[in-house]
Amino acid sequence: MGDYDLVIANGTVVTAEAVYIADVGIVGEEIAAIGQGLRGRRTLDAGGCYVLPGAVDVHVHLQMPVSGGRYVSSDDFASGTIAAAHGGTTTVIDFVEPQPGQSLREALAARRAEADGKVAVDYGLHMTIPTWHADEPQALAEIPALIEAGVPTFKLYLAYAGLRLDDAQLYTVLKALASHGGLPIVHCENGPLCDRLRAEALAEGHTAPRHHALTRPPRQEAEAVGRALDIAALAAAPLYVVHVSCAEALERIVAARRRGQPVFAETCPQYLTLTAEMLERTGGERYICAPPLRREADQMALWGGLARGELQTVATDHCPFTLAEKAEGADFTQVPGGLPGIEARLSLLHTLGVRGGHLSLSRWVEVCCTAPARLAGLSRKGHIIPGADADLVIFDPVRQVTLSADSLHERAGWTPYEGLRLHGWPRLTLSRGEVIVEEGRFTGQPGHGHFVARFDVT
Amino acid sequence: MGDYDLVIANGTVVTAEAVYIADVGIVGEEIAAIGQGLRGRRTLDAGGCYVLPGAVDVHVHLQMPVSGGRYVSSDDFASGTIAAAHGGTTTVIDFVEPQPGQSLREALAARRAEADGKVAVDYGLHMTIPTWHADEPQALAEIPALIEAGVPTFKLYLAYAGLRLDDAQLYTVLKALASHGGLPIVHCENGPLCDRLRAEALAEGHTAPRHHALTRPPRQEAEAVGRALDIAALAAAPLYVVHVSCAEALERIVAARRRGQPVFAETCPQYLTLTAEMLERTGGERYICAPPLRREADQMALWGGLARGELQTVATDHCPFTLAEKAEGADFTQVPGGLPGIEARLSLLHTLGVRGGHLSLSRWVEVCCTAPARLAGLSRKGHIIPGADADLVIFDPVRQVTLSADSLHERAGWTPYEGLRLHGWPRLTLSRGEVIVEEGRFTGQPGHGHFVARFDVT
Amino acid sequence: MGDYDLVIANGTVVTAEAVYIADVGIVGEEIAAIGQGLRGRRTLDAGGCYVLPGAVDVHVHLQMPVSGGRYVSSDDFASGTIAAAHGGTTTVIDFVEPQPGQSLREALAARRAEADGKVAVDYGLHMTIPTWHADEPQALAEIPALIEAGVPTFKLYLAYAGLRLDDAQLYTVLKALASHGGLPIVHCENGPLCDRLRAEALAEGHTAPRHHALTRPPRQEAEAVGRALDIAALAAAPLYVVHVSCAEALERIVAARRRGQPVFAETCPQYLTLTAEMLERTGGERYICAPPLRREADQMALWGGLARGELQTVATDHCPFTLAEKAEGADFTQVPGGLPGIEARLSLLHTLGVRGGHLSLSRWVEVCCTAPARLAGLSRKGHIIPGADADLVIFDPVRQVTLSADSLHERAGWTPYEGLRLHGWPRLTLSRGEVIVEEGRFTGQPGHGHFVARFDVT
Amino acid sequence: MGDYDLVIANGTVVTAEAVYIADVGIVGEEIAAIGQGLRGRRTLDAGGCYVLPGAVDVHVHLQMPVSGGRYVSSDDFASGTIAAAHGGTTTVIDFVEPQPGQSLREALAARRAEADGKVAVDYGLHMTIPTWHADEPQALAEIPALIEAGVPTFKLYLAYAGLRLDDAQLYTVLKALASHGGLPIVHCENGPLCDRLRAEALAEGHTAPRHHALTRPPRQEAEAVGRALDIAALAAAPLYVVHVSCAEALERIVAARRRGQPVFAETCPQYLTLTAEMLERTGGERYICAPPLRREADQMALWGGLARGELQTVATDHCPFTLAEKAEGADFTQVPGGLPGIEARLSLLHTLGVRGGHLSLSRWVEVCCTAPARLAGLSRKGHIIPGADADLVIFDPVRQVTLSADSLHERAGWTPYEGLRLHGWPRLTLSRGEVIVEEGRFTGQPGHGHFVARFDVT
Repeated sequence: MGDYDLVIANGTVVTAEAVYIADVGIVGEEIAAIGQGLRGRRTLDAGGCYVLPGAVDVHVHLQMPVSGGRYVSSDDFASGTIAAAHGGTTTVIDFVEPQPGQSLREALAARRAEADGKVAVDYGLHMTIPTWHADEPQALAEIPALIEAGVPTFKLYLAYAGLRLDDAQLYTVLKALASHGGLPIVHCENGPLCDRLRAEALAEGHTAPRHHALTRPPRQEAEAVGRALDIAALAAAPLYVVHVSCAEALERIVAARRRGQPVFAETCPQYLTLTAEMLERTGGERYICAPPLRREADQMALWGGLARGELQTVATDHCPFTLAEKAEGADFTQVPGGLPGIEARLSLLHTLGVRGGHLSLSRWVEVCCTAPARLAGLSRKGHIIPGADADLVIFDPVRQVTLSADSLHERAGWTPYEGLRLHGWPRLTLSRGEVIVEEGRFTGQPGHGHFVARFDVT
Repeated sequence: MGDYDLVIANGTVVTAEAVYIADVGIVGEEIAAIGQGLRGRRTLDAGGCYVLPGAVDVHVHLQMPVSGGRYVSSDDFASGTIAAAHGGTTTVIDFVEPQPGQSLREALAARRAEADGKVAVDYGLHMTIPTWHADEPQALAEIPALIEAGVPTFKLYLAYAGLRLDDAQLYTVLKALASHGGLPIVHCENGPLCDRLRAEALAEGHTAPRHHALTRPPRQEAEAVGRALDIAALAAAPLYVVHVSCAEALERIVAARRRGQPVFAETCPQYLTLTAEMLERTGGERYICAPPLRREADQMALWGGLARGELQTVATDHCPFTLAEKAEGADFTQVPGGLPGIEARLSLLHTLGVRGGHLSLSRWVEVCCTAPARLAGLSRKGHIIPGADADLVIFDPVRQVTLSADSLHERAGWTPYEGLRLHGWPRLTLSRGEVIVEEGRFTGQPGHGHFVARFDVT
Repeated sequence: MGDYDLVIANGTVVTAEAVYIADVGIVGEEIAAIGQGLRGRRTLDAGGCYVLPGAVDVHVHLQMPVSGGRYVSSDDFASGTIAAAHGGTTTVIDFVEPQPGQSLREALAARRAEADGKVAVDYGLHMTIPTWHADEPQALAEIPALIEAGVPTFKLYLAYAGLRLDDAQLYTVLKALASHGGLPIVHCENGPLCDRLRAEALAEGHTAPRHHALTRPPRQEAEAVGRALDIAALAAAPLYVVHVSCAEALERIVAARRRGQPVFAETCPQYLTLTAEMLERTGGERYICAPPLRREADQMALWGGLARGELQTVATDHCPFTLAEKAEGADFTQVPGGLPGIEARLSLLHTLGVRGGHLSLSRWVEVCCTAPARLAGLSRKGHIIPGADADLVIFDPVRQVTLSADSLHERAGWTPYEGLRLHGWPRLTLSRGEVIVEEGRFTGQPGHGHFVARFDVT
Repeated sequence: MGDYDLVIANGTVVTAEAVYIADVGIVGEEIAAIGQGLRGRRTLDAGGCYVLPGAVDVHVHLQMPVSGGRYVSSDDFASGTIAAAHGGTTTVIDFVEPQPGQSLREALAARRAEADGKVAVDYGLHMTIPTWHADEPQALAEIPALIEAGVPTFKLYLAYAGLRLDDAQLYTVLKALASHGGLPIVHCENGPLCDRLRAEALAEGHTAPRHHALTRPPRQEAEAVGRALDIAALAAAPLYVVHVSCAEALERIVAARRRGQPVFAETCPQYLTLTAEMLERTGGERYICAPPLRREADQMALWGGLARGELQTVATDHCPFTLAEKAEGADFTQVPGGLPGIEARLSLLHTLGVRGGHLSLSRWVEVCCTAPARLAGLSRKGHIIPGADADLVIFDPVRQVTLSADSLHERAGWTPYEGLRLHGWPRLTLSRGEVIVEEGRFTGQPGHGHFVARFDVT
């Protein structure tokens, strides 16, 4: 009889640090050992496959109401996390958006109530500090309690009426967060400026989807990134910039880091693989997301930034809507923004990143699993080490999969990657020692996932 | 009998391009010839002196109401232009600030009525586009008419409630100006952010003058400069940045220019010569101006920028208040901002710039006279060429003057340069062929000055 | 009877500072006055034309032996300066190349003997300090005497065996020059590295002209520029970089200037107008020059650099060889390097620079006339001011000329600009008050030109 | 009876990726497992201590002859590696310096003969390609064989007569290395320029040690770094820059990486902790090393660079000479260059890096252990993973040690860190499963160390 409940044997362990052949022994929900010749009560052979820490997606929007509730993103906490699990993602972080008049803690409790019992994998929550709370001392006074409750990351928007913080609010919130050790997670686009550009476009009769990209140009994103960094410097706050989409924005991050500022940055698969030309196709409105898709030169800059460590993480910003919902609006400004993508991230990055020559195996795991876990304070995730949660993926690097809405488990009913041939796909996904996906079949159950309190961000 | 009404003989002509000995012949109000051995009905000997184009100060605030009219800057159009003339400045550009409900043209007419008949030297006016007009289509529709009326330069503020444009307004106004060939003149500080920092300081009991500088740090100025440049790039507009005070702001200007943006920048004598330490003295509130005084390292950066052509002009931002007015407020936020300085600019720059080894003689004339005239569209000013207005200064480079409120002609009753020993001072100032200052005696008359319509800016 | 020997009347005077209508009065060899209604014993009407200071070409190679004397550049001091005069250039600066064992002063005397009596326009000489003199204390000891003799500019090469200085020699020579106020004029290419790349190409059988450009890539030029600047910083020496050909090299110059180094830079018409693709044509070897022709993106960078003041001057590096000489070598390494171009510079820059939207009229005159004169210490040239030499060009801006070897006065027998249609050409060229070209007819005489002693460089 | 020969129990494992409590199980010479509750035939308790991968010092000079053999560095392969082991370093990489006429393989064999049988820890060798071999095709033809023999890293010097490669040689060697997958390891100082500066100093009577630093200024190091990077770009070669000492050099590395070049960089404890002021003390000549010690601002830049990942490794450049040898020369140019330091690196970096707030625990291990191993191709070193060599350090983070020559095991007889109080020191060092240092007592034996063939560099 073995020492371990379960041994994943003979696989090639890939971590952010190294690639090596070893067995992984699991006891209960934890990794207990990494070694050679481990004996378990149950053994899963991973020969020829990679054994990875479960992937961590720190940027998802499940069952999220937008446009004043007119639309709700098409994956709920169940379907979204099942799709995630299929793709090898074992932890997601979603968002709390407090309503006017609602305390941050009430909003947290309400959002947890939506997720608990439904999530198939572990999850955390970022707390949004919207416009209406940014000037309320009692809202900012909740920050320490939230951090103690395991919500140390705070989403701030520089775009979107209602959510958007102006510069003074941003300063005050950043300073409050910094003083308590919270990490600001910032959407950097210049909202008022984009709104003006959009109004201008509509006034000129420009309603087609490609005007979405033209009215949110790289320069305005770079401006917002630079401004957030300047204000963070004055507030002595660190900064995590979400969904960096273009070379210009990346350059400002690199420059600020070189000046000594603590800044972290994320990009998304869509910015690494798709371009604004897709908006010009029939049905191009489905590709509307913010920031918008950019040019090939931006993709190259982002791949370079990932490889050189200028960008730390890849998250999905998964925010799916159906084609019907996407097509409903009279012009590009009325299309609910966001793309589906929670399922294929790990494999996309393997195919286009590792096989594409941009990333080493270890760097792939680092940007998809380890760095997101570390930056978000998921101390039990992202590593294959004794004591860590046994969130693991057996990833078959030679299996080929052609992406299609039919075979994916996301519920949007379409995928921006339709027809893309991927090399490598998970054979098995484990969450805390339990096999939840096996050979493309979901074997877990909604509610298996826990809310994960997070501490020690960055 | 001579060919010319007046010949300035034997002087060393100093222009932005060259330094040479020649006579300058004047007919009526114009320069008619530059040559050797010119004969005039009247001759002024300039032997041993420099003959300069009259200096041009494109940034002055005469009889300007601030703090809702509680204070008015202490030089009116008469005293201010007389002081300017004493120092060798023969053209000033002041500002029109339209009130809510007042059309831009009405405001222009009203402001002209305040100046005409009082000014001792020629003057122009920049049109301010304040918050309340930025969203009024009929106000922006006045732009072409103003440009045709010789007001092609438009002051935009990113600070000061009431005046400040938000990013969307800035974009719209810049685009409107660019489409008609107007030149935006921008005060770059992040107003809302400074207001927050000020409130924060007051809440902590920090009322002393030195908190003025601490609550308007270089980074916020650099942020505003960078943002204005980003938005100008999107609006395809040129930009003239007033009163650059620090290295960080200058760096962003240099970077934007290198990327191909048309950007011009001004600094002021106070930023080249004074530091924030003066705010810590007894009576330090008198040194309050915005942007605030900075560090010595910033001065060095600004001198270097002037020498290398990164900064194009030196203007005074003359905005004087009496010591009583300065001292009246309960805290630093209530002090009317601004420094006197209209009189000594040319000589200060000679002493500290030329003799200090930072500027050549030609570069001195360029930044004080020629470039301001060219950028502001004063086509008849700033040059010693036939056909130009005979605005001339006979400048004695070895005369020593100790600056003091008593000997200056400004009416603030004090000077930030009290006791500073200058080398070089005008012996004679001519405006359109008429001697208006001679050996320290004002010989002109209020009303001699004309409003100058300006065209072809930059 | 007039006051002046000659009056150029009614022209539009274009200087580096201003554009205005005036008469120019000449007495003897000098400009005596600029004014309105000047009366002369003789009058030339310049109505509708520009009156420019005679153009200054600080980089020409007339009757220069290369390849150990096998070839001599095809224009001698007579033909070259006549061609220059036709194009509006009234001063050229050529080079002295001391032979081993020859003192610098002997070499200067010998070179002057070749030029005096032949030159149609005034000329100066740069002193080359070749390899063999760089380590000779007695050679360096001659520097002060040369500077006193009016040769304050010293050509240093980082390429070409025999001429090339190694880093230690460069340091020593720069320091010696700096200590005496000499200005180093540096050819920045990494000679040994290029030689290696050339040998490598030949070893691989790559003999075609396009390998000339491939074996002198932009990066090696940038490296040499950067190295020269680093060593100049250590030697506390200013630097004038000749024939900057590419964006990468320009960037290093801009960065060094920003750090405070005194650096000046020149480009040439060929780098602004031709590309490396010409090397791929039949007879492509004729376009071989060093640095080689580059890409269109480099041209754009150079035009931007000229417009922004990052580059100060445009000179020709005129070094013509006949097509027979160009075609004689067995491979690209045996082709005598250099292009003809002394005649059309001013007009080329008018057509492609001014009319092409890159340069203002004043900037055109500045880079072709005024700045070269100032940097090279030609204090009597480059300006239209009383007391300056009456070197003037009456330039007809609407005259159209199609460049062709037949109509040019250069002796190479071909031109790289064959067939190019130019807008604007000199109608008249004056050298020290004498008309030397009139309506395309040379009316001067060889020997009219003087050697010009130069002082106060930069 | 346990599964493992040896278990290191209860320690806090610190790797480049994570910090966690676990046991490490060893079988024979290898790590067999990392887990909880491992049972071994022998157990070492590491409670309260860190368990680190053995540190890797990729830059040491043991028994190295300098000054034509006049001096030999004072640690031989035995004493040097014993000192290393005391400090927690379990692998060193030294150098082969082929003599003229000696083939690279012969030189490798000869150097191995000096080390084998003496080394207390594993070692590797870099192959130097000196001047005399750089132009020998048969020497470059040996490169593939050396890489196959496990010597894939090649030291190139840009300084030191005899060793120094000129630019053409550098290009050829870099290209040869790149084509075979070798990694160039480059000493970047401009040798000829420094020699000239030194000669100049001596000629002016400047013989004191401080002139060592003055004649090897930061700018010349930056120049050499920039040049090596430019030439590497042309040769399509990666580059590993040794002993970066100053901010200026670091900036050029950062810029090149940003442009996409594969470049790696090392600094040394001395550049992080000592300054050029030490050269001004009595006996200051002992601090002579190249590059020289710099200013505090450079230290701050280097710490920042390490923290941000701009610098990858910390190595010692251990090259000790006795005080007598150091003091013997008549002037600073005759002092054998180099400092002792092989023993205290790991602890110094813990004290000043981790406790000083510059580095996280994981980053400390990364720069001292993991990254050097990875970049140098030591695939079995630098990690705590199954299958890796059981090179481990039990590091007591609270033990305090005052550095002194008496207590160190280096043989120079002095230390530049005399009197420095360190926090943290190894309690135990294991090399391939064998305890070689225990509580300050060396328990291993010379000859235990193996030559390690290295592959897959970077």
